[in-house]
Amino acid sequence: MAPSETLTAERILEATEEVLRRHGPAKATVVDVARALGVSHGTVYRHFRTKATLREAVTKRWLDRTSQTLARFVTEDHDPETRLRHWLAGLFEAKRKKAGGDPELFATYSVLAEEAGEAVSDHIDELTGQLTEIVRAGVESGAFTVADPAVAARAVFQATGRFHDPSYAREWLKPGVEGEFEALVELLVRGLR
Amino acid sequence: MAPSETLTAERILEATEEVLRRHGPAKATVVDVARALGVSHGTVYRHFRTKATLREAVTKRWLDRTSQTLARFVTEDHDPETRLRHWLAGLFEAKRKKAGGDPELFATYSVLAEEAGEAVSDHIDELTGQLTEIVRAGVESGAFTVADPAVAARAVFQATGRFHDPSYAREWLKPGVEGEFEALVELLVRGLR
Repeated sequence: MAPSETLTAERILEATEEVLRRHGPAKATVVDVARALGVSHGTVYRHFRTKATLREAVTKRWLDRTSQTLARFVTEDHDPETRLRHWLAGLFEAKRKKAGGDPELFATYSVLAEEAGEAVSDHIDELTGQLTEIVRAGVESGAFTVADPAVAARAVFQATGRFHDPSYAREWLKPGVEGEFEALVELLVRGLR
Repeated sequence: MAPSETLTAERILEATEEVLRRHGPAKATVVDVARALGVSHGTVYRHFRTKATLREAVTKRWLDRTSQTLARFVTEDHDPETRLRHWLAGLFEAKRKKAGGDPELFATYSVLAEEAGEAVSDHIDELTGQLTEIVRAGVESGAFTVADPAVAARAVFQATGRFHDPSYAREWLKPGVEGEFEALVELLVRGLR
């Protein structure tokens, strides 16, 4: 690392992702990350106290990218039903892009996510929170008629698991998957009305 | 085997299941099955020409037990919406029983099912066929209003994957899972109406 550059947590996470991509989750070490940054491993440990903390932080960063992509659908200038459709299509699209665009990195993060129980459940809470906001707006506008927006949002999130849970990634490239997704969204939107 | 007993395919499949339970899918051999029956392995091969054929047949038998359990909900004497609710609850219940009652056998069959692509897709076709019949009856009675019963049935089956796909078996024992299942069924029934 050039001495003029400051070693931020973000730069360490970037390097960690690159090391994970190259070595895979089983072999990547903190020493590899330090070497990639041209610093000692002690320097990395000053930012992330254990290897597990570093792995959890990089997983969180990866998951946050999806939540940030979706956040704009919560507040966009459309009626709640359209926002819901855009949000669900956006989630499917984001996952497919991650899985198809860089399959090795996707497989790596799928392994990391298995370890990072808390980061994953926080992520799911954040996503269902976004969905709840849209469903609540729909109830307020009269477009939806469900009794409990949070319960309905969780049901919608779970119902669409086939189109965002990484364990189904193999299904996302099959012919007909678009039609299956659309039929499911249609059924769920009808259920919320 | 006592000489008076006839060696039927069914008896071989029973013995195979027992051998799989005892040795696990990685170690179970046709020789083990023959030994359990007190016959030569050649006798087993006269019924099932390869080890793969035998494994596929025993997997199909295991899957068929679920379809047979559910078939009665298709024709039972209730309105279509009730039949749909019973069928979905019956599927979740059957899967939970299999997973919870004999976890080792369930894990064994989950491995076998990964190999037996065709038996599994036939099974899924049979289940969605049963669901389609119920949805079609609902459309005919005016209880449901979907355009294509087969498309809607497939969407309902996929939407409830979390409550029947073996890869989610860990979730089935968590507190609150019943409430999640009911909220989802409610949303789907509303969507069909």
